[in-house]
Amino acid sequence: MTEINKPAVEGITIDCVFFGFNKESLEVLLVQHAQGESMGQWGLLGGWLQRDESADDAAQRILHDLTGLENIYLEQLKAFTNPKRVAERRVVTIGYYTLVSREDYNIKSSLKVIEAKWYKISEIPDLIFDHNEILNFSLLQLRNRVRQAPIGFNLLPEKFTLLQLMHLYEEILGIELDKSNFRRKILHMKLLVALDEKQKDVSHRAAKLYKFDDEIYQKLTEKGFNFEF
Amino acid sequence: MTEINKPAVEGITIDCVFFGFNKESLEVLLVQHAQGESMGQWGLLGGWLQRDESADDAAQRILHDLTGLENIYLEQLKAFTNPKRVAERRVVTIGYYTLVSREDYNIKSSLKVIEAKWYKISEIPDLIFDHNEILNFSLLQLRNRVRQAPIGFNLLPEKFTLLQLMHLYEEILGIELDKSNFRRKILHMKLLVALDEKQKDVSHRAAKLYKFDDEIYQKLTEKGFNFEF
Repeated sequence: MTEINKPAVEGITIDCVFFGFNKESLEVLLVQHAQGESMGQWGLLGGWLQRDESADDAAQRILHDLTGLENIYLEQLKAFTNPKRVAERRVVTIGYYTLVSREDYNIKSSLKVIEAKWYKISEIPDLIFDHNEILNFSLLQLRNRVRQAPIGFNLLPEKFTLLQLMHLYEEILGIELDKSNFRRKILHMKLLVALDEKQKDVSHRAAKLYKFDDEIYQKLTEKGFNFEF
Repeated sequence: MTEINKPAVEGITIDCVFFGFNKESLEVLLVQHAQGESMGQWGLLGGWLQRDESADDAAQRILHDLTGLENIYLEQLKAFTNPKRVAERRVVTIGYYTLVSREDYNIKSSLKVIEAKWYKISEIPDLIFDHNEILNFSLLQLRNRVRQAPIGFNLLPEKFTLLQLMHLYEEILGIELDKSNFRRKILHMKLLVALDEKQKDVSHRAAKLYKFDDEIYQKLTEKGFNFEF
């Protein structure tokens, strides 16, 4: 492990699946490339890993440049290394995913990006390179995760209804849930605090608002559980 | 994402945490390097990613070269990318772990390796580069995994005693378990098939032998559970 004959890769990129939840739908922020052979095509938010930074730092830098956000909650997915993933070049990418509140960000103008747009999970277009594969892998990770730990803290507003939380689970799992069953199970976990408040400005009957119990959310995140939907 | 100013890395390596279970202890196979600046030091099994192969293929090739094993069950951990992880060079490594039966392998002689040796988890020496960090990360993964899915298929002999299985869990979790409690919980899962056979050639009272129910093992692997020890 001490000699290198020729570089096995021309570069390493970072690609991030940027999840947001918009009332009833799970969405992913995609960008349309403004340069080079991928011009006009849609892909995940990404950029090059620099020589003097870790992948985590690179992901923070790249997302900060595009969104202005700092200290984003990020999880590395894995390295995607198919030698044919980028035509004519050998580029390995390290995938990440993040869960953000839709109110947190503003896409900055950038020379590299023509447009940035939220896409519903069910309406993802053909993406450049292996970005559809990375996105699908991140969805599997997210699905595993919601069965084993609480989710929603970074995706929902501070106060939310049980129905909003259920829609989030439905979107991630890709299945329809039974309202009363979901209600019973989620309340049984003691994860939620019922507030003395109801929704405002809604056309239907205003529903009760809840927030997460920070301590129990933290404890269940560490300890894990098996949520059977 | 279309220009590269200078290569961010000089190469990508693969490093694999090679777990085996030896009667009562969880062990990791380490190799002593025979070349270069790391000569004489111990590290994980590893090698360079080549230009025309995926990381999965590279891991299979490297482990095959060292052990003769084929189609090894491997899981990628993640990419380890600290820019200072290797002194004076920028090398990113992709970590893997594998669980093998101790009877499966024979370390082949190799120019790159002076010696290969199994180390107990509690007696791991100082390793080269960030290999202690990679090993610790793989242990955390393994600990999460045993709480969520069955384990042991690749680590235990085909027929085993409940005590052997419990020792495996104890080693991975780093805690002592209560025998009757473990027995009750594991049997409740229907994962094991009691055989009409007992241990042979043991000095103590021969214990009943079990094997895994393949179908339930598979089902629980897909579905997951939350094993509270």
